[in-house]
Amino acid sequence: LAFRLTILGSSGALPAIGRFPTSQYLTIQNRHFLIDCGEGAQIQMSRFQVPVNKIDHIFISHLHGDHYLGLMPFLFSLHLNKRKDDLHLYSPKGLDEIITLQLKYSKSALNYRLIFHPFNPEAITTLFEDDAMTVETIPLRHKLECAGFLFREKPKLRRMNKDRLSEGLKLQHIVQLKNGEDVFNDNGKLLYRNSDYTLPPRPSHSYAYCSDTAWNENMIEQIKGVSLLYHESTFMDADEDKALETKHSTASQAATIAQRAGVKKLLLGHFSARYKKLEMLLAEALPLFHNTELAIEGASFTLEE
Amino acid sequence: LAFRLTILGSSGALPAIGRFPTSQYLTIQNRHFLIDCGEGAQIQMSRFQVPVNKIDHIFISHLHGDHYLGLMPFLFSLHLNKRKDDLHLYSPKGLDEIITLQLKYSKSALNYRLIFHPFNPEAITTLFEDDAMTVETIPLRHKLECAGFLFREKPKLRRMNKDRLSEGLKLQHIVQLKNGEDVFNDNGKLLYRNSDYTLPPRPSHSYAYCSDTAWNENMIEQIKGVSLLYHESTFMDADEDKALETKHSTASQAATIAQRAGVKKLLLGHFSARYKKLEMLLAEALPLFHNTELAIEGASFTLEE
Repeated sequence: LAFRLTILGSSGALPAIGRFPTSQYLTIQNRHFLIDCGEGAQIQMSRFQVPVNKIDHIFISHLHGDHYLGLMPFLFSLHLNKRKDDLHLYSPKGLDEIITLQLKYSKSALNYRLIFHPFNPEAITTLFEDDAMTVETIPLRHKLECAGFLFREKPKLRRMNKDRLSEGLKLQHIVQLKNGEDVFNDNGKLLYRNSDYTLPPRPSHSYAYCSDTAWNENMIEQIKGVSLLYHESTFMDADEDKALETKHSTASQAATIAQRAGVKKLLLGHFSARYKKLEMLLAEALPLFHNTELAIEGASFTLEE
Repeated sequence: LAFRLTILGSSGALPAIGRFPTSQYLTIQNRHFLIDCGEGAQIQMSRFQVPVNKIDHIFISHLHGDHYLGLMPFLFSLHLNKRKDDLHLYSPKGLDEIITLQLKYSKSALNYRLIFHPFNPEAITTLFEDDAMTVETIPLRHKLECAGFLFREKPKLRRMNKDRLSEGLKLQHIVQLKNGEDVFNDNGKLLYRNSDYTLPPRPSHSYAYCSDTAWNENMIEQIKGVSLLYHESTFMDADEDKALETKHSTASQAATIAQRAGVKKLLLGHFSARYKKLEMLLAEALPLFHNTELAIEGASFTLEE
């Protein structure tokens, strides 16, 4: 499962029975990320068998309580479970101070190191990069400074064509071929033509997490063509005035963004507690963007290799 | 239901599947109290139909995360649900700072007034008093400054004997009789002898909540004869070394305290996540104190009038 998203919470600010506030678990090529961490996120991680000790990076979109108040209890549980590995926290300014103050009053020193990466939610910033992928912020429009996150795999290596494996192939040749090169011998004679021995790389996937936001055309360019877009849809069209007032979006606004950005799939979430039947929100999005699903608790979305 | 306790969480610091961290709802003569508020307390309040808007006083025993990290989400929900009434918070020093900092970073001003009452957990202090009852701290022995709470009804008025109601009785006479006085006319002639017209008052109940504590003989005097004692019992006898190390109690220590304090009933709680079957903890307490029950999620204890 090279690229898989699991929804831990689908609720807006007020908890609705059976729904939890926003939190998502994302794994990409054996990297494990937590995105937002509302109250009870650790209960949901346990329920959906998230390998919590493998999570090394946590991204918090903004400091409204429903997006981060599950973090402190989760950090304490990791401590009690004897975590040793560094844990990286990415968030707008303030979370470091909030956590440090609570550690002070509990007279606790964690067993592991917390590394804070405060970011400016108003600019596109690369928060994480390694050989396989990047994570950058997506500036959003909300009552409080808020950013989404864009997870993007880098281009992958070409694959060896198993039908054309030759006995003479050495490890160094395979490395060259996977990198797209032809292989020559010391005398400059062509040994293996790349196109004869390799297949195109597997597709590189991307996930745009657009947490709390009002209608926001500015981000369309940045998220163009992503494999998967999560866009909040707190309200239905009939409550569009509430969306305007609270700087949230309707399901049809989310679908319009998905359509205009040409994404492959759209997930809706952050539902207002006023809606008992979420199918009604889905029904408002589907005519505008066909490949839409509800991001409800326990739902899992795998992008195929 | 003049005096009723409902258990919202029974778990120790690490959450166990199906258990929630410590929180209790107590109602006494139409006063509504919340005692500790671990993560997810508001989920449990909703599940067990606690009238959250009637809660005007919240008591926090200490600032370990499993006893207060459900408070901030609960405060935000009260705000979103348009609470207007003042809310009183009693806790060791620090909670005011923690809450104020989180409100600052969420740029929220609550609709209602939060009134902080920091207390010194090392001394017996009366935190609340009105015409019907008092609440005082119970100093405990834990890794972090920690106090329990003793809720005590004041002596009640005598009751009118319904078999002896006389037509001549005026409201002022009834008030005098309920207060234990005889009633005379203006000339000093005895009209109603108290013992002829009234019955003894109903019993006054008391509840001692002894949150996280190591073995603590000091509190026996203070909680002597209470109607109901909640005493943490994080561990079984076989793990007594863990109890010593973490400054918690075993079930048999809790039962010994109950027995020596001559309480009427004992409740056990704050169970370590290592125990799947809580009946084993109960079994260790019962031989030492017969009237013992497990304080598990949803359990409710009513003291009869």
